[in-house]
Amino acid sequence: MTGFALWFTGLSGAGKSTISELIYERLKATGHKVELLDGDEVRTHLSKGLGFSKEDRDTNIRRIGFVCELLVRNGVIAITAAISPYRDVRDELRAKIPNFVEVHVDCPIKVLAARDVKGLYKKALAGELGHFTGISDPYEPPLNPEVRIDSSSETPQQSADRIWSKLEAMGLL
Amino acid sequence: MTGFALWFTGLSGAGKSTISELIYERLKATGHKVELLDGDEVRTHLSKGLGFSKEDRDTNIRRIGFVCELLVRNGVIAITAAISPYRDVRDELRAKIPNFVEVHVDCPIKVLAARDVKGLYKKALAGELGHFTGISDPYEPPLNPEVRIDSSSETPQQSADRIWSKLEAMGLL
Repeated sequence: MTGFALWFTGLSGAGKSTISELIYERLKATGHKVELLDGDEVRTHLSKGLGFSKEDRDTNIRRIGFVCELLVRNGVIAITAAISPYRDVRDELRAKIPNFVEVHVDCPIKVLAARDVKGLYKKALAGELGHFTGISDPYEPPLNPEVRIDSSSETPQQSADRIWSKLEAMGLL
Repeated sequence: MTGFALWFTGLSGAGKSTISELIYERLKATGHKVELLDGDEVRTHLSKGLGFSKEDRDTNIRRIGFVCELLVRNGVIAITAAISPYRDVRDELRAKIPNFVEVHVDCPIKVLAARDVKGLYKKALAGELGHFTGISDPYEPPLNPEVRIDSSSETPQQSADRIWSKLEAMGLL
């Protein structure tokens, strides 16, 4: 089987985890070797102690990339769902990891702030949260992602279906 | 293919890297999916910033274990060659990782001190190096490793051959 990396990137609350879980479950159900490295799981197992400076965020993303590379080159599908805000590190990983498929889960800040599932946007917009990506910390959107999703205008299931079609069109499924 | 973890443990200079590389090359040459996570490589990619307290060493070993588990459950052979001095963490990983094969590369301290490839044993024995495993820091040998090697009494090639035979006997090759 062909390994590939399905690399989600986007702001907190945009839908990365929800969509990536839908894809993960469908891949599992269809007999693929697949691992989902969610941002929170990775922070626990690989990156405890790291903070939110650019340097620490880059270290976190490079570690996820290191694990992805090990999986992908052994024929496993690796899905990641960390914010991964910086373009240069994502592009560094794209150059290293075979079959790197970038999915930008985009959503307007005002929609995220209205949903505000964890109550973080309200605090960040009030200036009470430092290093909050998209508000008090940078987010650099991909320039040419394989898939771009606007999660304010389609359901997670529609997004997952579009990603699946793209993977088929790329010959990865 | 069946994945398994080949977990080397032993003092610095005992021969873990040399023997693990022989096994890695033989597995590669015979068409197996295999990754070698050497102690130094892992310190660079997964554990930069960690020190040598028990807590930090345990974190380092758990991270290697996390990556091993991802590989093994996807049918990949994961070889690790870190000192991994503490028995409790090794046993914790044994309980989590399928097909965990522990190899203790043993060697008397006086032989290691006589070889002293990196000049570290001289310094440690003179009391100039803190946290040096086996001298100023604990090393807890496995009680029931799948393979025990005394690298003062056989060549790396002989050790690698014995490990290979054990893996065959266990039905893993």
